[in-house]
Amino acid sequence: MTVSTESPIARPGTGVALLPPPDGRAGVVAIGDVALENGAVVPDVRLTVQRWGELSPTLDNVVLVEHALTGDSHVIGGPDGAPGWWEGMVGPGAPIDTDEWCVIATNVLGGCKGSTGPASLASDGKHWGARFPELTIRDQVRAEAQLFEVLGIERLGAVVGGSMGGMRVLEWIIGLPERVSAALVLAVGARATADQIGTQTTQMAIITADPDWQGGDYHGTGRAPMTGMGLARRIAHLTYRTDSELDHRFANKAQGDENPWTGGRYAVQSYLEHQADKLCSRFDPATYVLLSEAMNRHDVGRGRGGVAAALASTPVPCVVGGVDSDRLYPLSTQAELAEGLPGCAGLEIVHSRDGHDGFLTEAAAVSKLLTETMRLARENR
Amino acid sequence: MTVSTESPIARPGTGVALLPPPDGRAGVVAIGDVALENGAVVPDVRLTVQRWGELSPTLDNVVLVEHALTGDSHVIGGPDGAPGWWEGMVGPGAPIDTDEWCVIATNVLGGCKGSTGPASLASDGKHWGARFPELTIRDQVRAEAQLFEVLGIERLGAVVGGSMGGMRVLEWIIGLPERVSAALVLAVGARATADQIGTQTTQMAIITADPDWQGGDYHGTGRAPMTGMGLARRIAHLTYRTDSELDHRFANKAQGDENPWTGGRYAVQSYLEHQADKLCSRFDPATYVLLSEAMNRHDVGRGRGGVAAALASTPVPCVVGGVDSDRLYPLSTQAELAEGLPGCAGLEIVHSRDGHDGFLTEAAAVSKLLTETMRLARENR
Repeated sequence: MTVSTESPIARPGTGVALLPPPDGRAGVVAIGDVALENGAVVPDVRLTVQRWGELSPTLDNVVLVEHALTGDSHVIGGPDGAPGWWEGMVGPGAPIDTDEWCVIATNVLGGCKGSTGPASLASDGKHWGARFPELTIRDQVRAEAQLFEVLGIERLGAVVGGSMGGMRVLEWIIGLPERVSAALVLAVGARATADQIGTQTTQMAIITADPDWQGGDYHGTGRAPMTGMGLARRIAHLTYRTDSELDHRFANKAQGDENPWTGGRYAVQSYLEHQADKLCSRFDPATYVLLSEAMNRHDVGRGRGGVAAALASTPVPCVVGGVDSDRLYPLSTQAELAEGLPGCAGLEIVHSRDGHDGFLTEAAAVSKLLTETMRLARENR
Repeated sequence: MTVSTESPIARPGTGVALLPPPDGRAGVVAIGDVALENGAVVPDVRLTVQRWGELSPTLDNVVLVEHALTGDSHVIGGPDGAPGWWEGMVGPGAPIDTDEWCVIATNVLGGCKGSTGPASLASDGKHWGARFPELTIRDQVRAEAQLFEVLGIERLGAVVGGSMGGMRVLEWIIGLPERVSAALVLAVGARATADQIGTQTTQMAIITADPDWQGGDYHGTGRAPMTGMGLARRIAHLTYRTDSELDHRFANKAQGDENPWTGGRYAVQSYLEHQADKLCSRFDPATYVLLSEAMNRHDVGRGRGGVAAALASTPVPCVVGGVDSDRLYPLSTQAELAEGLPGCAGLEIVHSRDGHDGFLTEAAAVSKLLTETMRLARENR
């Protein structure tokens, strides 16, 4: 098993696996070939890994934090680094207390932040591009499970995440319940809804309609379908927020001194363009398409006798939370999880005006849910 | 004043104006130059007009039915014609009873169903295309007001419509209150919200990013940005429906025998593609862009001291209705209208699972609102 990391620290006593340092610096861990649900095999997979906190001698204090569609392993920023997507949730004294827990986050299989995906190089030295096989959420979890097998970690204290991260949490506790002590499932449902598939397939079509898509093999050509991905992001971002929050901030105002009557922009238009530009500066369109299709295929009931049977099958103690204003993953879909999961004491409602993004922005409410999750993890350790 | 119509019927006694026949067949009426809010002038404007029912001798029984973004003057179908967008609402014994009322519907200024717009020919015999000036909802109403001036009709019994049609109704009762006896305002607000502007500007950008857009001058080139307009429509259609209705119909099912795991489509994806194809077979992308920007600019308060002052200024008796599941024009925006319009007795809530499209699909509830509107029209005649 080959392992490469910028600053490797061997876990004492095993000699098997290497983890990046406990200060959040990223490393890359090779996890071998990953066999996918559709029969394809991705050879020699590498996952980007970040870690905060020390491993306990008995390796029983690991918390896996699962990122969403355009997130990555950078959960929190370091003293000099860029901020993470869940600032304040992880650290000494934080809801996931790194004085007690060793927090690990990966960039998902198929991702574009150092993990093997369409934008990375295959064994022939060329970009994977359109050759990269279609994935499912279960495949992503299979890769994570292999990572922990490589590391010699047999059981996780907790798996936590929202949105696409929450899909992986569900697949962990349903597919590998013996390996998880507790879980937090946020802002997601048991399967993709028609509305989600509707917007996701349209976003995918917007990207692949961009002439720079080039059949998915644009990497290395000097042209990438950033116009398409930016437009997809603008649509997606609207689904992540709410009418009332957007109107409170922007109403029908012009952007600064611009005049929409003479070619200028509206404030909300400028805001959405800014969101698009930010994503285009940091994300790969083929990954966006690949992971969107993985989300379309999200269905915990597939091959398990349906959603209800799948949910009923896992005893893992878990917290299920939803945002009351979420218009992409409506509260009714979390209610189904809370009712169907035997290890859940009841739906936790996060009050927010921010819609789906509330799972990222409502720090106080999410902190409480994480604290409760870690209490369950401690009890069920 | 030139008038052309396939089957013109002169209104007896005036010799001034001509209307199409009372059986719904379309005619085209020339209304002269239209001066726009932005200072531009559209010369020699023609509007497509359809009519159902006879004009009263005193010309006091006209009801104007206002279509939405991709609608037109074809409100109901004839015995052999294609169905209209508001079947059952107009006709003998219908809520707008053509035994009593003379119903007139126009294709809006800037439209693509025979009225002067980007897809029609300018005086040089070439398509207007990108030369067509930007419009507002008030400009659309200005054109309609000129039509009735041409026809010698000084006052309307009622003006009714939803969505973009409702925007024109609002501009009628606020801008020309002395010319309207009663109104029905459905599924719209006093101004564009940030959410509406956000989705509309993105849809416009999707269309203009299509290589076949050609700067808006694609007419007559044999190429039109139908891919872009289809994608915009898929996004728009999702905003017109609701999560629960879509999921009830499609869930995450595959389309027929297709397999999304091997290149096939999801059922909801196929449905949205079908909606896109239908629009592309009947609508012009430049008109879609032009009318979307007109909707961005919708603000009854512009130049009138704000929304509240504008609403308070009109005494026209009116019915305001909203759909409880509308996620594009939420009920709160109709509540603002109902509270602010002195002639409104209170918000009428249409219960529906269909979202914004409820103003088209909930025939029984909308019939009641139309019946009440016509009662107000009769009282205030």
